[in-house]
Amino acid sequence: MSNPETVYELYYWPSIQGRGELIRLLLEDAGAPYRDVARLPPEQGGGVPAILRMLKEPPPGAPPFAPPILKAGDLVLAQVANICQFLGPRLGLVPGDEGSRAHALQLQLTIADLVAEVHDTHHPISSALYYEDQQEAARERAASFLAQRLPKFLGYFERAAAGSPYLLGSAHSYVDLSMFQVLEGLAYAFPRGFEGAAVTIPSLLALRQRVAERPGVAAYLASERRLPFNEDGIFRRYPELDAASS
Amino acid sequence: MSNPETVYELYYWPSIQGRGELIRLLLEDAGAPYRDVARLPPEQGGGVPAILRMLKEPPPGAPPFAPPILKAGDLVLAQVANICQFLGPRLGLVPGDEGSRAHALQLQLTIADLVAEVHDTHHPISSALYYEDQQEAARERAASFLAQRLPKFLGYFERAAAGSPYLLGSAHSYVDLSMFQVLEGLAYAFPRGFEGAAVTIPSLLALRQRVAERPGVAAYLASERRLPFNEDGIFRRYPELDAASS
Repeated sequence: MSNPETVYELYYWPSIQGRGELIRLLLEDAGAPYRDVARLPPEQGGGVPAILRMLKEPPPGAPPFAPPILKAGDLVLAQVANICQFLGPRLGLVPGDEGSRAHALQLQLTIADLVAEVHDTHHPISSALYYEDQQEAARERAASFLAQRLPKFLGYFERAAAGSPYLLGSAHSYVDLSMFQVLEGLAYAFPRGFEGAAVTIPSLLALRQRVAERPGVAAYLASERRLPFNEDGIFRRYPELDAASS
Repeated sequence: MSNPETVYELYYWPSIQGRGELIRLLLEDAGAPYRDVARLPPEQGGGVPAILRMLKEPPPGAPPFAPPILKAGDLVLAQVANICQFLGPRLGLVPGDEGSRAHALQLQLTIADLVAEVHDTHHPISSALYYEDQQEAARERAASFLAQRLPKFLGYFERAAAGSPYLLGSAHSYVDLSMFQVLEGLAYAFPRGFEGAAVTIPSLLALRQRVAERPGVAAYLASERRLPFNEDGIFRRYPELDAASS
């Protein structure tokens, strides 16, 4: 369904990193040929309408519920962890044995859970409401996130990373790339809260640095293809949701 | 790592259906030999301490973040969709081709998103607080869930199910079993809200019936192994969170 010459097509909102960034990082780290379709101009079939077309008239197979969506030859896939599981072996971003692939997917799904909880710090009531219209609940949820959930997640990933260069042990994988993105996002969204947590996660911080220095990732981060974090994405810097300064 | 004679071990809270039920249904539908470890008496190594041991001293590989946890020979796996992806081919619960496996995982992950949103209707602020201590936010979140999110999810799955006996088309799969469980749970937790939605999902209701009549599932549902829904699980019947009666 795809081969080394496949030009992948990514469909994701063109103005945010969001969950699509987890896929962009795989493609960039591996130097895989891809088109970030919605970031192309409309006259080249790009823009948001390209995403809406894919949602409205999906090709055969399971329809996508939401972006990111990856087209690889005839196959159209949605859900970040599913796309990672598919791309991993093709891009050399996961060891080939079944145990490693399952452990990678397990870690990736736990990252997805963390990302969903980050999203809900600013949208605890409804994605259909503005942040400003659920700000009181957001303050409560963010406080609980920083006090309880974030330490629990980071402690878990720190244990998974400790003693090895990579989350899967001796092999770099797509999970490292997603972990990098989550750490970048947390540092952006919760500078005070993350600074407080950082002393407890030396292995994760070393991993973050190691990923940032990978040639494909470093080139990507320095390019215009890397969108900045902003307050339309998942990781939003709302000072009132961050930890109180000590 | 496992073979047809593998006796699977499931580690999940013994007093609720919760996310563990999605795994129990696979094993039961397939008639696979398994031990629901934490439901065994303590003198047989069961009870909640068995889960805590697995969390505290995980075997080699990626440590589990939370139950459900499946032990299959030497391999220990967590995260529902990951366990389904692993068990699917072994139990004949997903077609073998890569496209079908990816589409199954995609649908399963979208079911997981729906389940997480159901959980957050009663715990919108923090899992560490009692429902009663976040009831006001829960009312708002549940209202938004029933008005916007539930119709969106059910509409999506109805389109995926329409015109075919199964969610993957002509082949029964683990996704059907999870969809069944979610529909059962929604009908339990939101009897009024679900009744309102039911008229829009004929294909899903037919699928639910078809799954309920499968020999393995029917035998399981009639057995004492099937725990009842209750207000400690994910699907909780809190009348104040249900749709207003019309």
